[in-house]
Amino acid sequence: MDHQPELRGKNIRIGDNCRFGTNVVIHENVSIGNNCQIEDGCVIGHPFEGSEKETVISDGSLIRSHTIIYTGAQLGKACTTGHHACIRENSIIGTGCSIGSYSDLQGDLTIGDYCRLHSDVHLCKGSKLDSFVFLYPRVTLTNDPYPPSMEVQGPHIKSYSQICTGTIVLPNITIGKNCLVGAASLVTRDIAEHSLAFGHPADVWDDVSTLSKKGKPRYPWMYRYSKNMPWEGIGFDKWRKEQQE
Amino acid sequence: MDHQPELRGKNIRIGDNCRFGTNVVIHENVSIGNNCQIEDGCVIGHPFEGSEKETVISDGSLIRSHTIIYTGAQLGKACTTGHHACIRENSIIGTGCSIGSYSDLQGDLTIGDYCRLHSDVHLCKGSKLDSFVFLYPRVTLTNDPYPPSMEVQGPHIKSYSQICTGTIVLPNITIGKNCLVGAASLVTRDIAEHSLAFGHPADVWDDVSTLSKKGKPRYPWMYRYSKNMPWEGIGFDKWRKEQQE
Amino acid sequence: MDHQPELRGKNIRIGDNCRFGTNVVIHENVSIGNNCQIEDGCVIGHPFEGSEKETVISDGSLIRSHTIIYTGAQLGKACTTGHHACIRENSIIGTGCSIGSYSDLQGDLTIGDYCRLHSDVHLCKGSKLDSFVFLYPRVTLTNDPYPPSMEVQGPHIKSYSQICTGTIVLPNITIGKNCLVGAASLVTRDIAEHSLAFGHPADVWDDVSTLSKKGKPRYPWMYRYSKNMPWEGIGFDKWRKEQQE
Repeated sequence: MDHQPELRGKNIRIGDNCRFGTNVVIHENVSIGNNCQIEDGCVIGHPFEGSEKETVISDGSLIRSHTIIYTGAQLGKACTTGHHACIRENSIIGTGCSIGSYSDLQGDLTIGDYCRLHSDVHLCKGSKLDSFVFLYPRVTLTNDPYPPSMEVQGPHIKSYSQICTGTIVLPNITIGKNCLVGAASLVTRDIAEHSLAFGHPADVWDDVSTLSKKGKPRYPWMYRYSKNMPWEGIGFDKWRKEQQE
Repeated sequence: MDHQPELRGKNIRIGDNCRFGTNVVIHENVSIGNNCQIEDGCVIGHPFEGSEKETVISDGSLIRSHTIIYTGAQLGKACTTGHHACIRENSIIGTGCSIGSYSDLQGDLTIGDYCRLHSDVHLCKGSKLDSFVFLYPRVTLTNDPYPPSMEVQGPHIKSYSQICTGTIVLPNITIGKNCLVGAASLVTRDIAEHSLAFGHPADVWDDVSTLSKKGKPRYPWMYRYSKNMPWEGIGFDKWRKEQQE
Repeated sequence: MDHQPELRGKNIRIGDNCRFGTNVVIHENVSIGNNCQIEDGCVIGHPFEGSEKETVISDGSLIRSHTIIYTGAQLGKACTTGHHACIRENSIIGTGCSIGSYSDLQGDLTIGDYCRLHSDVHLCKGSKLDSFVFLYPRVTLTNDPYPPSMEVQGPHIKSYSQICTGTIVLPNITIGKNCLVGAASLVTRDIAEHSLAFGHPADVWDDVSTLSKKGKPRYPWMYRYSKNMPWEGIGFDKWRKEQQE
């Protein structure tokens, strides 16, 4: 992990205390923050149609092996990628996000803070995730209602929602805050906030707060889960109150 | 992008004006045309059971990083692959095709001209795509009716058909020309040409020409979409007429 | 294939007659048996949270290009991986297993002998496969009933069962011996042994032995299929009898 990357262009800035695996390639107009690790075989700032936009990897990020990040992508602080991920041009990603192995972000999309994409998530161009959205393996967002076309109608998933394994979201769909969408669903209509939805096509079955275990509600999940979340150690309510002050 | 590939055998022909990334490996019996780009970490002509068949990458092709192409695969002119694609032995691919990132072509299959496989498409051995077939992310073709067996009954998808995200096609199925198969479908029966089909299992719901937007039919799509198609700039009817002359 | 791997630590043991592609990285505490091949761009013994567990690749194994194997993973003799596979920490894998391209084993899981995972199989943490289990492309096992949580309730799939393409298995499910689960199923309940099950959600439709072709039963499959299985050449009954003696 103490190799020199191949610098394939100008305007490359690398912060302090960064470490690189073998065969890392960095193209032009790339800015890498302090304390980043970029593992073996990664390509950072992959060219796209002559774009000169800056590619940004912020402080404390970990880019696992064989990840490809295109020009104009911007990752916030303390982001991680899995192995073999691909993040296309102009993907704007917030702080503390995790992009799983094999995940495929098609570009021109936005992701808020502290989102987690598990393995093999596919985000179409134009996708919009707010913050604290978790997508489980093989979730797929789509954007073209009459393929092929030049339309880009990416779905919008609002904060705190959880989309389970293998679910496919059709173009132009909005999923409200605090939803839980069950595994292997096909989401064909908008889903209101706080919904428990699943099925093929997905129906809303109940308010998500009705899901309980041993008499305790499981959702909203922020009251029982805090690993690597900004409310870790202080609790969700206290954290949110601090945010509002 | 101006590295020397590692030549790992004899009978390797490389055309004029080709460019290579780092750590490209080329095995024996490989022919690469003129004006090709082969990005970082690709393996071309990967051996398979002692086959000495020629691997062909034709003029103007772009092979993106970490793509593996096996011996006996043949790509027509101006083909592209995404990142981390895998094209197994004896995959015969026509002109102007695009094979998306993570797509996995299992070999002994044929693809016509101007087909587009989006990300993470899985084609079983024995698959047959005619021309202008578009497969969207995670479409999967299967070939074994009673697994495991040695049977290889790959599906056949005829020209101009569009198979949407996440659809699985069972063995031995034929999908006719000009169909649109909706997302997340499971295709268990043959589908006649010009059908709009979807569902789990997929049913035919209508003639595809009934899909319209603002009073204009959306299908056949060739009258409204031409990007990188041979009728770009002249229109589908005129192009087809020229073809017939 | 006759390169020197980069040894990135101590306690690395490499057996006789091993061959390595370019840019193979081997981390500390790795043991590689005799007659192994490790192709281009693989990473073996990838660190995980300071673990010092031994990573083991046993005699006669073939690790295809761009595979990542984490610390504490153990592969039995004569295992193979496809390209771009990822095997996380403490995955314990038996003899003669095949882990397909893009397959993603999340770690802390066990796989018996002679299992075959086709391409792009996703095994959650805590998965348990007994022996002779075949999983076809994109099969996904899940472990968290109320995500996100710290619970790890991996499914258990018993010997000889076949799970077809694209099927998703929910947390804590047990699938008995000798089952066939059809393609694109969602398994939400336990499945008893010898079942033919499919659907979304999966139902049991019949005893698997009722599936026949030209009057011959297709299942249990071990009487008609033996490629690379230990009963190859002698037949299943004779092999099993020998095992019992």
